[in-house]
Amino acid sequence: MTKRAVILLSGGLDSATCLAWARAQGFECATLAVDYGQRHRVELEAARRVAAALGSADHRTVRIDLSTIGGSALTADIAVPKGRDEAAMAAAIPITYVPARNAVFLAVALGFAETLGAADLVAGMNAIDYSGYPDCRPEFVRAFESLARVATKAGVEGTPYVVHTPLMDLDKAGIIRLGTSLGVDYSITHSCYDPTPEGLACGACDSCALRSRGFQQAGIPDPTRYQSPTEA
Amino acid sequence: MTKRAVILLSGGLDSATCLAWARAQGFECATLAVDYGQRHRVELEAARRVAAALGSADHRTVRIDLSTIGGSALTADIAVPKGRDEAAMAAAIPITYVPARNAVFLAVALGFAETLGAADLVAGMNAIDYSGYPDCRPEFVRAFESLARVATKAGVEGTPYVVHTPLMDLDKAGIIRLGTSLGVDYSITHSCYDPTPEGLACGACDSCALRSRGFQQAGIPDPTRYQSPTEA
Repeated sequence: MTKRAVILLSGGLDSATCLAWARAQGFECATLAVDYGQRHRVELEAARRVAAALGSADHRTVRIDLSTIGGSALTADIAVPKGRDEAAMAAAIPITYVPARNAVFLAVALGFAETLGAADLVAGMNAIDYSGYPDCRPEFVRAFESLARVATKAGVEGTPYVVHTPLMDLDKAGIIRLGTSLGVDYSITHSCYDPTPEGLACGACDSCALRSRGFQQAGIPDPTRYQSPTEA
Repeated sequence: MTKRAVILLSGGLDSATCLAWARAQGFECATLAVDYGQRHRVELEAARRVAAALGSADHRTVRIDLSTIGGSALTADIAVPKGRDEAAMAAAIPITYVPARNAVFLAVALGFAETLGAADLVAGMNAIDYSGYPDCRPEFVRAFESLARVATKAGVEGTPYVVHTPLMDLDKAGIIRLGTSLGVDYSITHSCYDPTPEGLACGACDSCALRSRGFQQAGIPDPTRYQSPTEA
């Protein structure tokens, strides 16, 4: 029987690569996008495009209104930082950090996996480009696996939940090379934290900067549609 | 400085008792109700009443549409079991189990706690009356505390998150005695899984049965408004 996996899909470059990776591993893939009151809602449309293009068998969008509890530039009325260099990004946990976001998202993915009879979760956490986010580290992923096995009926009955993080040790260029080798069309993905209403990328937020530099370093043309010309 | 705590408040008897307990411990209490697509939505109104009556300093209702991922009689179109005795309830994990529900709720409560600078979470898990739910056991609670300390900025910076479960070892009668001693007015709480549109309790679902028997065993009059007369 084909093993099922649940992939957290944001519509961005990283999670699209995760879905392509999971498909290449032979998993039947269900995908979960989270509408968490983020300001960059065009990413939910991107998630649907990516799910369709990369062969998700079952795509769901679940609404979790994290803006109710506030605390992040991605959900509250706090300005998104622009034009920061790598040193500035690495210096501290950024204000785009959403409190306990990955714990919430993985917990919902776990519930979805349990209803599908899937034991495998796939998520795009990455310890290099997101070193400032506590919930993107291997310690967090291992702690979540331990939780999953005691938090669910299936876990208690012996389902050995695993959270796969195929991007954990890759830099952005490495992720782009991996996805390109798996046939991902990055033009349908969306990364910008502060896009125009039409979905054009700002080219200046941390997410745009990491993405643009990744394509440069990978030596692969950047298909992103930017608001104004950039060096990419 | 007064320590803050976040209390998960369902509007039911158990979580109302938790809030009263936390207030008696001296915590400044923020309360979080989760609108998760449950069929018994009158409990969200009950949560607001309980928060106001028992002195929550900040009550929020966060919408998490778990019905998107299905899998439970509380969120999907599956009949709620009625008229079961204790043996039937204890025999298996009930279909009112919502996949990974407490992992999701505690993760959101953790995010709320982090934005408030609170290190303490309080939840009504109970190993006796809910022995069928994997995410109501001490193993689950300990695993969540471990997760919390690596999942958040505050945890990584040393906040020693604790999940208090003051009801863990009490039976329903013990919970009712505790709450009554702390001044809880249980007439404003709601427990029924399948109420009338007016909010009257069905008197027959597992939750009504446990509640009704709890008042009987505690020797305290049951203030619940039932749909039709019961032996309570």
